[in-house]
Amino acid sequence: MKKIFLLAGFASVTAFAQIDTTADEAFIRGIYDDALLNQQGYQWLHELCKEVGPRLAGSEGAERAVEWAQETLDTLGFDRVYLQPVEVPHWERGELSVAIAGSSIELNACALGGSVPTPEEGITAEVIEIPDVDDLKNYTREDIEGKVVFFSAPMRQTYINTGSAYGEAVKKRHTGAMEASKYGAAAVIIRSVTTRMDDAPHTGSMTYEGAEERIPSIALGYQSADRLHNALQQNPALKVNMTLTSQWFDPVMSYNVIGEIVGSEFPDEIAVVGGHLDSWDLAEGAQDDGAGSVQSMDGLFLLMRSGYEFKRTHRVVLYMNEEFGLDGAREYARVAQETGERHVIGIESDGGGDVPRGFSIQSLPSGVEAVESFKWFLEPYGLREYSIGWSGADIGQLRNDDAILLGYRADSQRYFDYHHAPTDVFESINARALQLGAASMASMLYLLDKYEVRP
Amino acid sequence: MKKIFLLAGFASVTAFAQIDTTADEAFIRGIYDDALLNQQGYQWLHELCKEVGPRLAGSEGAERAVEWAQETLDTLGFDRVYLQPVEVPHWERGELSVAIAGSSIELNACALGGSVPTPEEGITAEVIEIPDVDDLKNYTREDIEGKVVFFSAPMRQTYINTGSAYGEAVKKRHTGAMEASKYGAAAVIIRSVTTRMDDAPHTGSMTYEGAEERIPSIALGYQSADRLHNALQQNPALKVNMTLTSQWFDPVMSYNVIGEIVGSEFPDEIAVVGGHLDSWDLAEGAQDDGAGSVQSMDGLFLLMRSGYEFKRTHRVVLYMNEEFGLDGAREYARVAQETGERHVIGIESDGGGDVPRGFSIQSLPSGVEAVESFKWFLEPYGLREYSIGWSGADIGQLRNDDAILLGYRADSQRYFDYHHAPTDVFESINARALQLGAASMASMLYLLDKYEVRP
Repeated sequence: MKKIFLLAGFASVTAFAQIDTTADEAFIRGIYDDALLNQQGYQWLHELCKEVGPRLAGSEGAERAVEWAQETLDTLGFDRVYLQPVEVPHWERGELSVAIAGSSIELNACALGGSVPTPEEGITAEVIEIPDVDDLKNYTREDIEGKVVFFSAPMRQTYINTGSAYGEAVKKRHTGAMEASKYGAAAVIIRSVTTRMDDAPHTGSMTYEGAEERIPSIALGYQSADRLHNALQQNPALKVNMTLTSQWFDPVMSYNVIGEIVGSEFPDEIAVVGGHLDSWDLAEGAQDDGAGSVQSMDGLFLLMRSGYEFKRTHRVVLYMNEEFGLDGAREYARVAQETGERHVIGIESDGGGDVPRGFSIQSLPSGVEAVESFKWFLEPYGLREYSIGWSGADIGQLRNDDAILLGYRADSQRYFDYHHAPTDVFESINARALQLGAASMASMLYLLDKYEVRP
Repeated sequence: MKKIFLLAGFASVTAFAQIDTTADEAFIRGIYDDALLNQQGYQWLHELCKEVGPRLAGSEGAERAVEWAQETLDTLGFDRVYLQPVEVPHWERGELSVAIAGSSIELNACALGGSVPTPEEGITAEVIEIPDVDDLKNYTREDIEGKVVFFSAPMRQTYINTGSAYGEAVKKRHTGAMEASKYGAAAVIIRSVTTRMDDAPHTGSMTYEGAEERIPSIALGYQSADRLHNALQQNPALKVNMTLTSQWFDPVMSYNVIGEIVGSEFPDEIAVVGGHLDSWDLAEGAQDDGAGSVQSMDGLFLLMRSGYEFKRTHRVVLYMNEEFGLDGAREYARVAQETGERHVIGIESDGGGDVPRGFSIQSLPSGVEAVESFKWFLEPYGLREYSIGWSGADIGQLRNDDAILLGYRADSQRYFDYHHAPTDVFESINARALQLGAASMASMLYLLDKYEVRP
């Protein structure tokens, strides 16, 4: 039997504890075997995508998703399955038509999430093409007033981690309408934030906070953006007609769905694993974040059916409305604080269902050190990349010196091909990649619990 | 400027040479930028899949592929582009029908590559289900004679590297008919060798070497194999009707396609990069091995257009008929030996177009050490897995104490979902993953050439 020693300095209970590598290796191997053979998460994802379908917070689809998740968790043997009420916004995209006046050029487009509608008669206006939001400063109000601003810059392909490219590119989606409104723009069109040069339009949240006026904001598919660009090269004075019937309604009540197992030794210390149950309305939300939801469910269930006895209380939390305001995660964190619950471990999966690459770690340095001391166990399964500083949008709401928060990191190359687009469907997920992720999360949960790791 | 030192002991010319990490990092970064921005390999793959299409050695498709490759290489500025004649087998699969007698259960099937036909009137016989070839020893000739043997074991899901699972599972495809013929079997049906539980049948090569008699051999889609298994549970005496009109023809002349740049300092030392141009006939051969072909082409072309001055002679070699006898690779190695050409470096890509994971190294230990000293440069691009002992089927023909042979390793999770099946089409390839592979191969070629690495 090989034995290695935990590094000193992080674990208040088990400092210098011996790690039984042979037994842990075998246990973890068993978790991966079960995940790959039974593909439980993949089967759940099929149900979530094909039976529940799109599930934008506030929609009927989201209601069905809550029911499906609760009913599914109810069958798994948790000590408690419950719904946590969350008020969420209710927006519907209605119908969109957009065309170049007097032209038959096809423009595939979708409204950005939260966009106001156009006037009933639509907007007909000239287009001014500007690469990105930061370039607005090179223009005057006179240049832009009354026009449709077309932010045409593509997402940068040269980042290796596409998440970094997204961080840069999403600004025009999120703040484009707000910023352009300060110059008197009539509406905003953006090139979809995507790594794939196809023609699927990608939606996503936007904000009017700080806007001079609320103006409609839509996204074109990558190829449609090229067509509009080319048409503008031919005729800079062309006009677009745009009609959008999106609508805001009163907020509605929805729910986080939670399954809980009470810990045998430290019931007051809580470890959560989760993804977000809501998706955008254009597709099945397989990658974003059906994958993370079922990986979290299967991750915990893999440990439950292994017979492992949890020392701490463990929860799977399926957050409502990550996409449109993080309401579920904020409410979960608020209730935790109010009731004095102590969250020590959090794992989130919200980067798609591709092959595992590693974890990102949000913790004090001692927590980072602890997680990195386990790397060795997960290398055989392809997890070799650990970064520090950020975990995830939902789990990040729990940040606290007491907590070790981890973002499970799937390979990022494909994720933004599908993200928020009609192409984000079940068929874009590889079963083995998804299941390797569930097993990776389960294995990390196991090590953190067994060795009672604290920052 | 950071500098690191090459380890001693491997490089006969540049032992202790300083590696200029800053310049090399920047150069490699430029290679990846070009690969990701221009996606040249991905565009070529589209042509090869959609314009050329399936290209089994000996077929018209393979002839078109040779023409396409030669014409494409002709435009890239090589010192020489040439065809190397290779005699290849010519087999055509004809038509297959297979059904359970008196049943409407659908069986999706394909002939295995090289199978003899059934008699014109077909075969009607009982089926005996046996998990795998090794289990034949538990049966007598009496049990099997005159029956169709159904090898029903699935590929094992629990391997993390699916290549290992393939190595185990492929035995029944390759030798099943040969072994079953020794027991007097009438024909063989196998469950497709695949990681995906869909219904696409997967073909692949088989052998009659050592067979008592040449009997037909076919593969069922995974789900069809389940259906046959279930039907046998209901009625062990059921019969199948099978008709196959496959045909062997005389061998035909085909070609390896080669592009060469003469080295400026060591023109007599040769570095090759390659994949195989032929594919199975059921699909476009995007993963196997269109991906490796275009990665090899783009890999070398990336260096050419960077302005890098090659010290050694570099060749891209697109091998003919890897699938059905390795004729192209054997002929290339034979000619190299006959003419006394000295091959010092070889890189092959034949594991699909998914995201990079690393390289496998076939070399004396000093060569392994040299390659591993470069790992640092490729880690930012996701290459962290290096194994020792095996490079690839084609490049492996050049093995020699003088040579460092490398297999580029893409992530293996998806590869056998598509391998040899009608689903191996262009759409299964992710552009960024493919291009990262091309850049990884280019970067390794660059480092090995610039630092004049020898085993």
